[in-house]
Amino acid sequence: MIENTPQGTVADGFDSVRDTFAAITAAEGTGYPAQVVAYRHGERVVDLWTGPGITGESLFGAYSASKGAAHLVVAKLVQDGVLDLDQRVSHYWPEFAVHGKRHITLRELLSHQAGLVGADTGFTLEELADDQVVAARLGAQRPYWRPGRAFGYHALVVAALSGEVVRRATGQTIQRLFTEYVSAPYAVDFHFGLPDDLEYRFVPTLPTEQQGETSAQGPNSLSGIAFNRNNPHGPQVWELPNLEVIRKQGPASIGGVASADGLARMYAAAIGTLDGVAPLLEPETVAAVGQLHSVGYDLVNRSQKAFTAGFHATSEYYPVLGQGSFGHSGAGGQQAFADPRNGIAFGYTRGRFPFPPGPGRDSELLIPAIYAAAR
Amino acid sequence: MIENTPQGTVADGFDSVRDTFAAITAAEGTGYPAQVVAYRHGERVVDLWTGPGITGESLFGAYSASKGAAHLVVAKLVQDGVLDLDQRVSHYWPEFAVHGKRHITLRELLSHQAGLVGADTGFTLEELADDQVVAARLGAQRPYWRPGRAFGYHALVVAALSGEVVRRATGQTIQRLFTEYVSAPYAVDFHFGLPDDLEYRFVPTLPTEQQGETSAQGPNSLSGIAFNRNNPHGPQVWELPNLEVIRKQGPASIGGVASADGLARMYAAAIGTLDGVAPLLEPETVAAVGQLHSVGYDLVNRSQKAFTAGFHATSEYYPVLGQGSFGHSGAGGQQAFADPRNGIAFGYTRGRFPFPPGPGRDSELLIPAIYAAAR
Amino acid sequence: MIENTPQGTVADGFDSVRDTFAAITAAEGTGYPAQVVAYRHGERVVDLWTGPGITGESLFGAYSASKGAAHLVVAKLVQDGVLDLDQRVSHYWPEFAVHGKRHITLRELLSHQAGLVGADTGFTLEELADDQVVAARLGAQRPYWRPGRAFGYHALVVAALSGEVVRRATGQTIQRLFTEYVSAPYAVDFHFGLPDDLEYRFVPTLPTEQQGETSAQGPNSLSGIAFNRNNPHGPQVWELPNLEVIRKQGPASIGGVASADGLARMYAAAIGTLDGVAPLLEPETVAAVGQLHSVGYDLVNRSQKAFTAGFHATSEYYPVLGQGSFGHSGAGGQQAFADPRNGIAFGYTRGRFPFPPGPGRDSELLIPAIYAAAR
Repeated sequence: MIENTPQGTVADGFDSVRDTFAAITAAEGTGYPAQVVAYRHGERVVDLWTGPGITGESLFGAYSASKGAAHLVVAKLVQDGVLDLDQRVSHYWPEFAVHGKRHITLRELLSHQAGLVGADTGFTLEELADDQVVAARLGAQRPYWRPGRAFGYHALVVAALSGEVVRRATGQTIQRLFTEYVSAPYAVDFHFGLPDDLEYRFVPTLPTEQQGETSAQGPNSLSGIAFNRNNPHGPQVWELPNLEVIRKQGPASIGGVASADGLARMYAAAIGTLDGVAPLLEPETVAAVGQLHSVGYDLVNRSQKAFTAGFHATSEYYPVLGQGSFGHSGAGGQQAFADPRNGIAFGYTRGRFPFPPGPGRDSELLIPAIYAAAR
Repeated sequence: MIENTPQGTVADGFDSVRDTFAAITAAEGTGYPAQVVAYRHGERVVDLWTGPGITGESLFGAYSASKGAAHLVVAKLVQDGVLDLDQRVSHYWPEFAVHGKRHITLRELLSHQAGLVGADTGFTLEELADDQVVAARLGAQRPYWRPGRAFGYHALVVAALSGEVVRRATGQTIQRLFTEYVSAPYAVDFHFGLPDDLEYRFVPTLPTEQQGETSAQGPNSLSGIAFNRNNPHGPQVWELPNLEVIRKQGPASIGGVASADGLARMYAAAIGTLDGVAPLLEPETVAAVGQLHSVGYDLVNRSQKAFTAGFHATSEYYPVLGQGSFGHSGAGGQQAFADPRNGIAFGYTRGRFPFPPGPGRDSELLIPAIYAAAR
Repeated sequence: MIENTPQGTVADGFDSVRDTFAAITAAEGTGYPAQVVAYRHGERVVDLWTGPGITGESLFGAYSASKGAAHLVVAKLVQDGVLDLDQRVSHYWPEFAVHGKRHITLRELLSHQAGLVGADTGFTLEELADDQVVAARLGAQRPYWRPGRAFGYHALVVAALSGEVVRRATGQTIQRLFTEYVSAPYAVDFHFGLPDDLEYRFVPTLPTEQQGETSAQGPNSLSGIAFNRNNPHGPQVWELPNLEVIRKQGPASIGGVASADGLARMYAAAIGTLDGVAPLLEPETVAAVGQLHSVGYDLVNRSQKAFTAGFHATSEYYPVLGQGSFGHSGAGGQQAFADPRNGIAFGYTRGRFPFPPGPGRDSELLIPAIYAAAR
């Protein structure tokens, strides 16, 4: 199966990563599309891909890895003093101050403590694609839990809310600022709103081949609301990037499109000099962004999770990582993070939706292999 | 075993619930007394009972399902502006403001965060039966944990404390207000202080047939204190409703007596119009009451639990339920809740104390059956 | 193997404890050095030891049981009004108020919520041995998590931080005040900074005989930082008391040296009259010190833990104990606590480092045996 042989290059000493990637490929079988990229101290040390028609420039739906991209903008604005994590959301966005939400801080919002995981009556596809519509709906709602007393993954909406704060504070969308601060200066192959002339590089997500039980959580449960299953006519999560309205409008929570290099490179840019360009974030900001905020039982995922202000606390998921690692995975199997203590940035994409959703065995094998090689 | 055949009626489409109830009955064997009732959008769709001498009007000890009844009164008083969840308990009850309890809010008290789960030296039966005695004792104590930093089930006492707040604010007992606000206007068969002329309908709780290990928790442990095992001469939990002083005085935490219809009907009344009477609670109050407050490790139960302000967050226990469901189970196997998003109210009683205590397999089977039928 | 037979005495009714200790000894095999002591209401009811050359006066490294000794001093200072648990650390120690630490309270610091579990770049042995050096380094750092939002075991450093508060408030080291308040008046055989003339009683810790996997946590992970594995040239935890600089300087978090009687006796002194000397702590202080503060997922240990302000909430670990028990175990297998509700104080030492580290099977067997005998 020639199309499954890993393509691409690795730096000296990283051959074992190629072997690990080949093993994953072999286990997944024919037609498995994937990319993996790692940077060490600003140099690309792993750059591999596999699958029919796939190259290192192929673009995949980023799913929730989009949240990491969006929140690099928030981190930059905090660094610049435009936003303050301890400021109330309602300071920037006065209409938010209803139904017991007046005191919610930006820090709480970013760490999934606001209790606004979805819409009481669900969203249509068109609504989900429009961050301002999502923000207006949720800004008018009552939180599902006492804000600050618990947390739950705002799966489809968190960056619509943080993005509204950005828009109110700067007059710009979070998507536009991502281009200005991140993708343009650092040549990062991550796109909110995919231009028509790049569509030829986009690879639609394949449905999962495995089938498991549907969720035990009812459509009106907290999980049901968070994943918009309370609208029976809404889109399926797995197909989101395949839908043109999502790809074109690029909602900040789930609508990005990227290569693995794009995912890794934005984090490499965040923490270190990249091709001569100074880092996006200063060490103080990197440390602030890596601080754990919400650790414990996630009301939506119904399992132990860990968030910083805007990111996954990725080091809580992969024990070889250094304290203060931050990033964001995606339901489609994506994984991406920066590990400032070890100088590593990582990006992974795959084109077949995994079951269960989220980063799984692929990243669990690849990340330790990269750390062993980087030692 | 004719006395075990389920009696009663179900609405069209709910026959499967009768089958489920029959299967439970058969598994429990001869002499298993139980009732199950469900309302959908204000209509009774399930009304079944079983057991020798049992009817739909039989009354069982409600155990901790009593807390749900009592806290419907608190919800109503919050709605009416008489109580404020964010007000300090000591505002209503000045003597409470000792030993680091000055800042505890009503919201924290109702969500089991106050750290007053029992008496340092235990209660006698007579003390346990008298809410004002319980409140005075605990109001003078130091919390067992830092208030607001953790929670633990105030198993025998929470509604004595919330009831004292009600009494201070209104001059009425919480029991009397339950009659005024709930049981009288909505014809709810739930009684705090069972009148002599209804004693003929009361069914004493049978002891458990199964025997398991006694608790590993010492009598002076936090669990021991919460369940009053630190008084070796105190009553056993299972026998509480069988004791006349409990049944007659109806302490609000554990002393109610009800049919399954009473349990279901009070929740049906809380969230919707019932026989032409407007709902007890407005949608805003229903949403406020369903908000999660204490989620995670319960210091008394030593397991994962979820409370709203005064109720179990029942949707955390049964995944088919809608977000914002609220209710309260009982150690004797009772279960009762309102599910406002799906318009369901549920009540279950059984007359044989289960092992382990609490709602178990019965409700785990019946609730999904009702939801499948109601779809 | 005569050297393995338990030596020492037990009070009437406590023979079963000797049997339990003998069984532990037999299971551990030749050369197992250990001591166990228990007091009941101020009387020593268990005083046993075993191992070649071991006596009841042998001194072992106390490891983290040292934290309990140090924090008895803090409890006494709180009782005397010199320290206030709710005061900010930065009130006593102004340089601490940097990088978002201005609002951290002494209570939060003592309950492992401050997020300062280790040094960004690790400590040398000499640094670890000097509490003031540790305090200065960590006082200048950014917390690893949002203070007060989570907790993690400050394994090697917590009492350097609390000790700095003590030093700023009193002008005395916490070690010196331990002598003044505890070891001198109550003849407690616990030493911070072992005098040369007591060295002959010191028993070096033997390495573990069992070998298990090394931690999956990377050296730069939060756990790696907390256990100083981010300095590859730093000392191993197991050997700490064997190193003269630790034994001589007696850093308050891990540097004490004690007999089991010393461990038990300091807790007996804390809660009750001992040989005619009034208790160190008043009942109010005992209750305050036993209050749970940090309960749940420990970010460093990555498991469920429970701390009071300065101590382990020991009753959360041994279900027979009474609510409000407080103490501190050690990595070397030590266990020590006071159980004020049952009037018990307990101390255990062993000279062979256990695998996994910490109090294990020994205390799990001995403590219930003592409670059964004390009934």
